[in-house]
Amino acid sequence: MNLGGSDSQYRYKRVEQELSRHIEAGDLVPGDKLPSLRQMSSSLQVSISTVSHAYEELEKRGLIESRPRSGYFVRSEFRRIPTPEIKTTQKIEPHTVTKNKLIQTALETVGNKDLLPLGVVCPSNELLPTRQLAKIMNSVIRENPFETAGYEMIPGNLDLRRQIAFRSVDGGSSMTADELIITTGAMEALYISLRTLTRPGDLVLIQSPSYYCFLQLVENLGLRAIEIPSCPKQGINPDRVAEITKTFDIKACIFSPNFNNPDGSLTSDSRKQEIVKILAEKKIPLVEDDVYGDIYFGEVRPRTFKSYDRDGGVLLCSSFSKTIAPGYRVGWLAPGRYVDKALEIKATTNVSCVAPTQMAIARYLRETLYDRHLKKLRVAMKDQMTKMRTEIGLSFPEGTKVTNPKGGSVLWVELPEQVDGVDLFFKAREEGIGIVPGIVFSPQDVFSNYIRLSSGSPWTDEIQAGVRRIAELAKEAV
Amino acid sequence: MNLGGSDSQYRYKRVEQELSRHIEAGDLVPGDKLPSLRQMSSSLQVSISTVSHAYEELEKRGLIESRPRSGYFVRSEFRRIPTPEIKTTQKIEPHTVTKNKLIQTALETVGNKDLLPLGVVCPSNELLPTRQLAKIMNSVIRENPFETAGYEMIPGNLDLRRQIAFRSVDGGSSMTADELIITTGAMEALYISLRTLTRPGDLVLIQSPSYYCFLQLVENLGLRAIEIPSCPKQGINPDRVAEITKTFDIKACIFSPNFNNPDGSLTSDSRKQEIVKILAEKKIPLVEDDVYGDIYFGEVRPRTFKSYDRDGGVLLCSSFSKTIAPGYRVGWLAPGRYVDKALEIKATTNVSCVAPTQMAIARYLRETLYDRHLKKLRVAMKDQMTKMRTEIGLSFPEGTKVTNPKGGSVLWVELPEQVDGVDLFFKAREEGIGIVPGIVFSPQDVFSNYIRLSSGSPWTDEIQAGVRRIAELAKEAV
Repeated sequence: MNLGGSDSQYRYKRVEQELSRHIEAGDLVPGDKLPSLRQMSSSLQVSISTVSHAYEELEKRGLIESRPRSGYFVRSEFRRIPTPEIKTTQKIEPHTVTKNKLIQTALETVGNKDLLPLGVVCPSNELLPTRQLAKIMNSVIRENPFETAGYEMIPGNLDLRRQIAFRSVDGGSSMTADELIITTGAMEALYISLRTLTRPGDLVLIQSPSYYCFLQLVENLGLRAIEIPSCPKQGINPDRVAEITKTFDIKACIFSPNFNNPDGSLTSDSRKQEIVKILAEKKIPLVEDDVYGDIYFGEVRPRTFKSYDRDGGVLLCSSFSKTIAPGYRVGWLAPGRYVDKALEIKATTNVSCVAPTQMAIARYLRETLYDRHLKKLRVAMKDQMTKMRTEIGLSFPEGTKVTNPKGGSVLWVELPEQVDGVDLFFKAREEGIGIVPGIVFSPQDVFSNYIRLSSGSPWTDEIQAGVRRIAELAKEAV
Repeated sequence: MNLGGSDSQYRYKRVEQELSRHIEAGDLVPGDKLPSLRQMSSSLQVSISTVSHAYEELEKRGLIESRPRSGYFVRSEFRRIPTPEIKTTQKIEPHTVTKNKLIQTALETVGNKDLLPLGVVCPSNELLPTRQLAKIMNSVIRENPFETAGYEMIPGNLDLRRQIAFRSVDGGSSMTADELIITTGAMEALYISLRTLTRPGDLVLIQSPSYYCFLQLVENLGLRAIEIPSCPKQGINPDRVAEITKTFDIKACIFSPNFNNPDGSLTSDSRKQEIVKILAEKKIPLVEDDVYGDIYFGEVRPRTFKSYDRDGGVLLCSSFSKTIAPGYRVGWLAPGRYVDKALEIKATTNVSCVAPTQMAIARYLRETLYDRHLKKLRVAMKDQMTKMRTEIGLSFPEGTKVTNPKGGSVLWVELPEQVDGVDLFFKAREEGIGIVPGIVFSPQDVFSNYIRLSSGSPWTDEIQAGVRRIAELAKEAV
């Protein structure tokens, strides 16, 4: 192992990550002695001070402890934390969603900038290319005062659509600009999809757990939902999709195959292909949410449902809100064979999207800044999530489980049964910490002892203290 | 009359306007001789060359003609053009709107920048404060890189809402920021209102004629419409509102009291007050579209329905798309007592509006640039409309009628009965001219011999030639 080649400023971080990975994986178990500073320094080919710095950080994070005149040891309290199992207690039957009030409260909490952002899913400002984008926006406005102030076309800025189409190959598709509609964030793409596909009273199939804003939309549109259990480790099971669509008259499915919010589950590419095939045979449209697809921790971007779509039955929804700038509200919809109806809905909702933000993002993409940024973002997101996971393992009550996602920015925490997530949410809010109670992620009450924690912010002492405080509150409830 | 004090560059324009007003009003009738250059120069206290310039312009516009060695005369072809009467042939009964296809075609034509913009309602670029706004946007982005890139609150930027609330006194209201929701243009405000108030199958009361995008929305939401005839001269009649709401179970009204698009009608303030009272008694909510309210040609801004609202039953929709920058898509909704539900709909449609454009418009308003701009804009809009009206009077076939609006930017042209507006629309489009056929402004086919012309662009030879070409096409159809 040679970590000597890396950027000197971040060298100790690499050492720290490498060691914590070994501890997480169980290569080093509680009570194990760590190699001496000198041994470590020579085996990793870094300076002693770098190793010392890394050990201090690991100690600060509570993974190891120094014993006087004996060296460093893996802390005895450290335990590997299991992943929640698939939740199959929910009933497979239509449900009218009625969680709007609680969801509204949760949403308001998430938007409150005075709270510690453990509820906010977006990467924090300093991880996004904010200053670069501001410069580009200024050039765009200066060079095109009239275009930026004038109406855009209903489907959106053509340059932007071309860039997005061009990038769709990363998810395995090959779209053209005229297959895309620019939307005010991915939420609007989802809303247009459901308005396009359903009428009040219709039945839609959703993953359980599912992002609460989807549930709120389902409720607001007067739809009924059937839940298919999502497995934190494997995502959506094609066999269950086949079964449920045989039994019920499903008008549309809403699935997040890549790092589903909140359980972080990844549905494998082969499962995706199978699901698309099953639904195509039954002519059931599939609304795909891919907002986290670009934040993968592995080597290769997971594919989209859309990439297996042969008859235009997949409606792909995504945005740059999680990767470039949430406030720019630039999302898109690839509505497949429903493009005409989708354009009508777009026109009658708000005519077209804001012009200057579309032009700025188009130029940002054209200048090929996105890939370089994403590479850094993914490293940071993975690192933050690992640290938060470790802290949860260290400080949360016995019996806690937490997901181990391969991408995205949230952790789904299953607490001991007696802990009420809503209670914890309100108590945390009182102490200035924003989290989201698990119960809002399903029309049924099966996730009452779950919470969602976001690891979108860089790991600081403040964030660590927040997670520890949640842990204490949870312990009090046991 | 002394026009000598005005800005020298525009002096001849003032003379021109003054004279054309007298001709329009019938003070000078066809065949009348105009005062000599010298007489005019001394009576108006301007130079002879100024009067000469004005006479040339009037001649170019076809209002007057010079006869060798006799001077200038009002053209014998000039005739005062009447205003269309209220159209009462439509049936007062529920109609399912089914004009989406034709409306879509009209909309695409309006958005086509290659066509002469006689269909586009917005003031053209050069009349809007585009460069000033671009500068402000640049400052806002430079000074607040993080705020402009981050999520806004669901109801929208607080500064902006305060500015809009503050300005609502102009329309006779006194709102506060928390009564407002920022929307992606006025269209989104209208959409949120209807989603808030209605379910598919419900009956809504609309003005006839009504803006076609409203009809498209009504169709897309599965609503049925009842039409109340709008009088080009007096707008909406409270007695008819009372009658219809007695007979039918109306769930919401959608009215544009101030310069209704397309008939330009202004419903008087006293009528507004009466209508609000009638609807309040019956607990029928009133969705008000006020996008043209700031473009009045008289001395005082007309009031809003909202200003007479005592129980929160009026939902005011407006935007800066017609006065500052359409591409910024900054509109607002004052949803009255329906604020909670409206916020839910907003959140599930697209979470919140784009941040930087809201901040830029907020600063533009705070720097008190808006009133000065509006003053100029109103003068220009009135001047353009007068010229277009005059041209219509001169060149359109015998029997044509045209509205004489007190504000806004469109003229509603009633052609002789044998002229088909849709035919004219397609023929004009072939020749590169964009107009809108009257038929798309009602679910019934009563306006088949009407067209809407927009006077949003400065009066140029090109625009004049376009209007004349439409006139020729219409004459061919007689």
